[in-house]
Amino acid sequence: METKNSGLLIIFSGPSGAGKGTVLQRLFELRSDCVCSVSCTTRAPRPGEVDGVNYHFISTETFDNWVERDKFIEWDRHFSASYGTPKEFVEEQLHSGKHVFLEIDVNGGQNVMRKIPGCLSIFLMPPSWEILEDRLKGRGTETAEQLEKRFSRARFELDNRQHYAYTVINDDVDRAAQLISSIIDAEMARTQRVPSFQYN
Amino acid sequence: METKNSGLLIIFSGPSGAGKGTVLQRLFELRSDCVCSVSCTTRAPRPGEVDGVNYHFISTETFDNWVERDKFIEWDRHFSASYGTPKEFVEEQLHSGKHVFLEIDVNGGQNVMRKIPGCLSIFLMPPSWEILEDRLKGRGTETAEQLEKRFSRARFELDNRQHYAYTVINDDVDRAAQLISSIIDAEMARTQRVPSFQYN
Repeated sequence: METKNSGLLIIFSGPSGAGKGTVLQRLFELRSDCVCSVSCTTRAPRPGEVDGVNYHFISTETFDNWVERDKFIEWDRHFSASYGTPKEFVEEQLHSGKHVFLEIDVNGGQNVMRKIPGCLSIFLMPPSWEILEDRLKGRGTETAEQLEKRFSRARFELDNRQHYAYTVINDDVDRAAQLISSIIDAEMARTQRVPSFQYN
Repeated sequence: METKNSGLLIIFSGPSGAGKGTVLQRLFELRSDCVCSVSCTTRAPRPGEVDGVNYHFISTETFDNWVERDKFIEWDRHFSASYGTPKEFVEEQLHSGKHVFLEIDVNGGQNVMRKIPGCLSIFLMPPSWEILEDRLKGRGTETAEQLEKRFSRARFELDNRQHYAYTVINDDVDRAAQLISSIIDAEMARTQRVPSFQYN
C-alpha cells in the first residue's frame, strides 16, 4: 500500500476513556498532513451526524457487495449494523502524502497489522487504571453490571498493547499529540523512506 | 547494555562535512539529557584540547591494557595513534538515563551495531553532493589528490547509509537537531520501553 512520497497508515487504539478522539483532534490542529479515516456503516445516521464526516452511511446491499469485492481494509458485523474501513479513501489520502489514522479496537488493529505489514501502530494509554476507571464511570447512571462490562473491555484492550509498536501515555493532551507528531516525523526519517541523491 | 530507565546509545555517523558537530551542539542546547561519548586516544593533545573534554589522553600501555581487558566498546589503530570508546563512561551515562551519542565513522558504527543490537543508529546526510563537495573543498589549499581522497571517503560513508536505522538530512541545523530529538522521543515511546500499570 505504501508508495513513494506516501503518507503513513497509522493504527490508533486504546481503551475507551483513554482520550483517543481528543488527542487526535489536537494532533490535527498541530499538523494538516494528518487525517482520520472515515468508516462506512449500515446503521442509520444519528441526529447531528453528517454523511462523509462521521461515517459514510451505506446500505446493507452496498456493504455486502463491497465485502465481496474486497473493498474494505477491515470490516466487522455487529448485532445491529456493519462497519468497515474503505480502501479507496485511505489509498487516495496516502498517495497524496497524508498520514491516515484508523481509530479501531485491538481486534481490528491486529487484523490490519496482518494485512498491511508496513503500517504503523500506536496505542494510547491512560496514565493509570484509577483515572481510566473514573472516566469509564461517566455519568454515574450505569448499573454495576454495565460498568463491569466496560472495565472488562478496557482490560482486554490494555492486554493487547504489546502488539503495538508505540505506546503514548495520555497524561496531557498537548504532550500526547506532540509525541505522536514526533513518532510520525521519526518514522518518515527511517532510512528506507529517505531518498538518496546522485553522487557518483 | 540497556537497563530499566536507561538512556539510548546512539551511533551517529555521516560524511565529513555533513555537519555532525554543529548539529550535536544544537541538540545538546535543546535537551540536557543527551551527551557525547568522549573517546580515548594515545596521541598527544593538540593546542587547546582539554583532557576529558575533547579526548581522554592515555598512554599506549594503558590503551593496550584496556583492549586486552575488553574495556572499549570499539577501538581502532591508525598509523600514528589508537582511538577507542571507553565502556565505563558510556554505561554510567546510560544508567543515569542520558542518551549517549557515539560520533564515529561507518566502520566503527557497524562494529558497535553488531556488538550492541539494542543501539540506535542515525546517519546525517548533507542536502546534496554539490553542497558536500563545496564544504570538503574547504580552504582551497588542498591538492587535487588530497581532494579526491576526501571525496572518495565521503562516497564510502554515503554508500553505507543503508545500515543505519534513521537518516537525517542536514538542510537546516535547527530542523536537523529537532528531528533527532523527535527520533529519541519516538524511540523512548516504543511499547517495550513503556512500563504498564497494575489493572487486575
